[in-house]
Amino acid sequence: MQQTLLDALTGDSEAAAFFADAADIAAILRFETALAEAEAEAGLIPAAAEAAIADACRGFAPDWEALAGGMVRDGVVVPELLRQLRARIGPPHAAHLHFGATSQDAIDTSLVLRLAEAIKLLDTRLVSLIRAFDTLRDAAGSTPLMGRTRMQRALPITAADKLANWSAPLSRHRASLAALRRKLLVIQLGGPVGTRAELGDKADQVAKRLAAILDLGLADPWHTQRDPLVEFGSLMALISGSLGKFGADIALMAQNEVAEITLAGGGGSSAMPHKSNPVNAEILVTLARHSAGLVATLNQALVHENERSGSAWTLEWLTLPRLVVTASASLRLATSLANQIGFGPPTNPKR
Amino acid sequence: MQQTLLDALTGDSEAAAFFADAADIAAILRFETALAEAEAEAGLIPAAAEAAIADACRGFAPDWEALAGGMVRDGVVVPELLRQLRARIGPPHAAHLHFGATSQDAIDTSLVLRLAEAIKLLDTRLVSLIRAFDTLRDAAGSTPLMGRTRMQRALPITAADKLANWSAPLSRHRASLAALRRKLLVIQLGGPVGTRAELGDKADQVAKRLAAILDLGLADPWHTQRDPLVEFGSLMALISGSLGKFGADIALMAQNEVAEITLAGGGGSSAMPHKSNPVNAEILVTLARHSAGLVATLNQALVHENERSGSAWTLEWLTLPRLVVTASASLRLATSLANQIGFGPPTNPKR
Amino acid sequence: MQQTLLDALTGDSEAAAFFADAADIAAILRFETALAEAEAEAGLIPAAAEAAIADACRGFAPDWEALAGGMVRDGVVVPELLRQLRARIGPPHAAHLHFGATSQDAIDTSLVLRLAEAIKLLDTRLVSLIRAFDTLRDAAGSTPLMGRTRMQRALPITAADKLANWSAPLSRHRASLAALRRKLLVIQLGGPVGTRAELGDKADQVAKRLAAILDLGLADPWHTQRDPLVEFGSLMALISGSLGKFGADIALMAQNEVAEITLAGGGGSSAMPHKSNPVNAEILVTLARHSAGLVATLNQALVHENERSGSAWTLEWLTLPRLVVTASASLRLATSLANQIGFGPPTNPKR
Amino acid sequence: MQQTLLDALTGDSEAAAFFADAADIAAILRFETALAEAEAEAGLIPAAAEAAIADACRGFAPDWEALAGGMVRDGVVVPELLRQLRARIGPPHAAHLHFGATSQDAIDTSLVLRLAEAIKLLDTRLVSLIRAFDTLRDAAGSTPLMGRTRMQRALPITAADKLANWSAPLSRHRASLAALRRKLLVIQLGGPVGTRAELGDKADQVAKRLAAILDLGLADPWHTQRDPLVEFGSLMALISGSLGKFGADIALMAQNEVAEITLAGGGGSSAMPHKSNPVNAEILVTLARHSAGLVATLNQALVHENERSGSAWTLEWLTLPRLVVTASASLRLATSLANQIGFGPPTNPKR
Repeated sequence: MQQTLLDALTGDSEAAAFFADAADIAAILRFETALAEAEAEAGLIPAAAEAAIADACRGFAPDWEALAGGMVRDGVVVPELLRQLRARIGPPHAAHLHFGATSQDAIDTSLVLRLAEAIKLLDTRLVSLIRAFDTLRDAAGSTPLMGRTRMQRALPITAADKLANWSAPLSRHRASLAALRRKLLVIQLGGPVGTRAELGDKADQVAKRLAAILDLGLADPWHTQRDPLVEFGSLMALISGSLGKFGADIALMAQNEVAEITLAGGGGSSAMPHKSNPVNAEILVTLARHSAGLVATLNQALVHENERSGSAWTLEWLTLPRLVVTASASLRLATSLANQIGFGPPTNPKR
Repeated sequence: MQQTLLDALTGDSEAAAFFADAADIAAILRFETALAEAEAEAGLIPAAAEAAIADACRGFAPDWEALAGGMVRDGVVVPELLRQLRARIGPPHAAHLHFGATSQDAIDTSLVLRLAEAIKLLDTRLVSLIRAFDTLRDAAGSTPLMGRTRMQRALPITAADKLANWSAPLSRHRASLAALRRKLLVIQLGGPVGTRAELGDKADQVAKRLAAILDLGLADPWHTQRDPLVEFGSLMALISGSLGKFGADIALMAQNEVAEITLAGGGGSSAMPHKSNPVNAEILVTLARHSAGLVATLNQALVHENERSGSAWTLEWLTLPRLVVTASASLRLATSLANQIGFGPPTNPKR
Repeated sequence: MQQTLLDALTGDSEAAAFFADAADIAAILRFETALAEAEAEAGLIPAAAEAAIADACRGFAPDWEALAGGMVRDGVVVPELLRQLRARIGPPHAAHLHFGATSQDAIDTSLVLRLAEAIKLLDTRLVSLIRAFDTLRDAAGSTPLMGRTRMQRALPITAADKLANWSAPLSRHRASLAALRRKLLVIQLGGPVGTRAELGDKADQVAKRLAAILDLGLADPWHTQRDPLVEFGSLMALISGSLGKFGADIALMAQNEVAEITLAGGGGSSAMPHKSNPVNAEILVTLARHSAGLVATLNQALVHENERSGSAWTLEWLTLPRLVVTASASLRLATSLANQIGFGPPTNPKR
Repeated sequence: MQQTLLDALTGDSEAAAFFADAADIAAILRFETALAEAEAEAGLIPAAAEAAIADACRGFAPDWEALAGGMVRDGVVVPELLRQLRARIGPPHAAHLHFGATSQDAIDTSLVLRLAEAIKLLDTRLVSLIRAFDTLRDAAGSTPLMGRTRMQRALPITAADKLANWSAPLSRHRASLAALRRKLLVIQLGGPVGTRAELGDKADQVAKRLAAILDLGLADPWHTQRDPLVEFGSLMALISGSLGKFGADIALMAQNEVAEITLAGGGGSSAMPHKSNPVNAEILVTLARHSAGLVATLNQALVHENERSGSAWTLEWLTLPRLVVTASASLRLATSLANQIGFGPPTNPKR
């Protein structure tokens, strides 16, 4: 579904690019090229085949309409993509493309390659946001605020107290992100039923080399073991959720009567030009709740029957990219919002 | 997020078109034109203003980039759209555009206008699918099958028994869809805080006329009363869920060892050309589970604070259109699948 | 899980009683008794067997420990319950108990019998709450309040405007509840695989008589057609969700700085005796969000494979009763809260 | 809600005991006793008060009915519990109970103390299950099975391949559980608004000592930072989800026509005594889907407004304990199921 306006508000173009079709196909081509290289080195395919495969993948422009047709027919894009690539490579080398691999090897590895990029983006944004909070604390941390519990005034606190509660989870999320890299950023290589059977006694060698070429970790085939992906998705929801708390706080503090905060550049209204709406704060709450729902659906995909479930796997595709984009958007909007904040009441209050 | 390949598999271009930006803006323009007409008739705005507004809306080509900018700034598209429209109308008539209305009036009514179209599509597809099941029953209803409970063989049934269980919920969904029309397909007109205050004693007249022009029902302002939308979304999940049961059954019946069904034109595999995968059946299960998750998030949006919640409202936008598209896709895929079915074992089994 | 304190806050003892084990077993016994009566009338079992079955069911005190053991072993309580009942009836009549029926017939009909009671409770509570809102409107509807949109002050409204938005959805929910009765409150009678095969040409007669005795509607076997139950669960979430909006509004209005409302008898704090917390309002939000999550899981149960899915069916048991109890609790708490409300600022504000 | 029969099937009495009211109150009393000890050492309260508090907490039998009343009134149990305790301690020492603390300090620390026990149980069960899989692999790992992808036969694998895919995630879950201990098993001590203000310059000393007495880690107040709890809940869903895959596989393999597995002691049917149902396998799928839903609701609780949200906090109480109990039940049932498995077709097949 293409909803550009809604994406402008709730999405993130930089993160979304990782999950665009073009990025997926490009990463699949990287996988096929690297696999051919690893297999040529292991003597499983001729060196000439490797060269022909690399040539074909380089600058390959797929027939997108046919790819969409293949997706509908096969449930995965790889068979049709391979058909197109094989036509380009031609005999005799075409037969060596994708040797010993299965669609899922290409697709999962492609996803992982792009998650590696996403993790970099997320970490960069986490750092920026933590810094924005630090800057606010240094500038205005001693500003007195009212602590509120159960929606009622309780006792005084300071801006630094608020900032600490907003920022501390982010450092934990950075650590979780780093810790997940080892589990998550690994190759997928299993062949049709996850046993690497066609690679014979060269299986380990090929896997090791494939990992090295793609700068990914080594792992046994994990076709049906989706827990690292779900754990990553859960972390995305944690990030968006933590920032939802920040957004909710800001929306409450920016209420006219509470007036503990001013926001530079709030959103306008079609009917009331005098209003300044805490749009970024509200959207952070939206994204937190959206992510919470997505993570449930992603968890449903853990029930991945047999050696490959088309059903559960497709459910991941519908949720995991969106979780990453949403967490990225949350971080971007939160940083914008942090930069809008001025603690204390407006100098010329509108109430 | 634009993922054309995934949309080809799991989306529905016909239903998605209702929720494209262009359709939204076109429906908002219909609302503004109709509102001006109703208000001119009530003497609230000059007839010349009505004409100027209608002229401006006709064939209006928005500056999309500026609309996206407005969306980001204001959280809604309407203020920027009105700015562009007013520039086109020019003084003195521009001041009469959108009189007494608020962004939400335009946006909610736009949504309702498009849901009216979606309901037609859904009902047409429900009818088609019910017919496909009827056709199968007439052709092969007496085919003996094994009834299975708790994943174990139980006692014999017939294909007609299966078909009845797949089809009966669809008739109930049709009835629900018809019953919902009255609640759902109504105008939104409340003004800034849902009181129609600026329309004074002409409020009822304007509302009544607006409804008539747009061929929608009349309703009190329902800015914060989102239950009919959520009920509609829940029905979408019921549709996808019922078809998920159909998909799950087919995937089980099509197992090689069970072989109670054959599917014409199943999907291929990159590694095992001999396989014929029940792709449509699997995706029906995926869409059922996806919808179940979306409906939870949509329900979260019922907690719509004060007289308008940017947070809860945006959450609807992220979920309701997707539920409609998913239900539409489920119906389309289910009809395809019904047309693929042949009861009984394959004549040349592959096991 | 027995958490009496949490249940005191978030549950509802009156509604929970419908789903207690004792109520379930009692309703199953009603089913078995009524089935025997219907079958005796149809000549399917001897009149003496009917009398013996009725005698045995009357005042039957099950061996609960053995029932729990049966539940663990069989996944349903009925086989062990029948074993105990048959031991009590003794030969030759014991063999006629449960003739032509399956566990699901007894369990689903038992559920429906109790949902009939739950619907009465829910409707009574909806009426009470609507009346409480009406009373508030009559007493203080003209109190001026500030309309707030996107968490910012917008334009003045009145208490009557707030009350209308809280109350209107409840009338729709009453109508939905009434409309659902016809779909939902029907017998389940299908036998092992949902075909009523063992009842032969007396099947319709038995079904009709069973429905009459139990004061339920007639329906074809619906073992795997769970949409009416899910639709009912969705309505429960709508009720809790609508009241979550009420709770959120009250918590916002009761903020010390906003002070548009006072609440008689708010909750205390262990550390700040001066505080008065809007506990009921907060819990209404909690219950709305809890229900939204439960309804997602209930929707997952629509994917009910084959002629009976132990997996999907048990998922209903974990969610539907809780949705009913939560909606009942929401209504009870909302009525309490409505009775606590005084519009306008506190006479002796604590800020 | 007390549903003993359903709990027998889907719950876990050992894990549920950690979340029983009695366990909660006992852990709160441990907190209050330890706090008094730490504060007496720091000179914040008299040594005699510490002794009186310790005496009162030892063997204290609360008035449960009054506690339930307090829960309803205050939304938390602590104010009423303290009232009862203070009445028992009497003046002058009663005034020193709970000094500088707030309800949340007691309640969160109580939860953490019990999660520490739950983690031990979970780890023990993970180890048992991994061993059960190892035993199966050693005994029958070389048994040939058919690999199935997209619900169709693909290529041969072995039982060892299946077992590796079931077992490998469990080792990751053990590692995650160990890693989470440091984040999760920490004291909560913040006072009314999370600043430890009343403890003055003794705050760090008291916190450090409190942690030492309770054998928990030290942490800054985390009243509103709920991410470690949600991360723990997400891990619970990962465990149940991984075992849902195991259950789904078993249910598929145990189909009569597939017959790749036999299960000792399957469940019975009320209508078909010849059937042997894979009850444990089905319930594992149920629990996986149930947990996936619960984790969404738990994530909603991350939006924890201000310095304490009654709303969000109560939402945790409704979900986190259930996630732990469900993961514990999943592990128990999975171990039972692993011990039921015999690879290969039944010696006397029933098809």
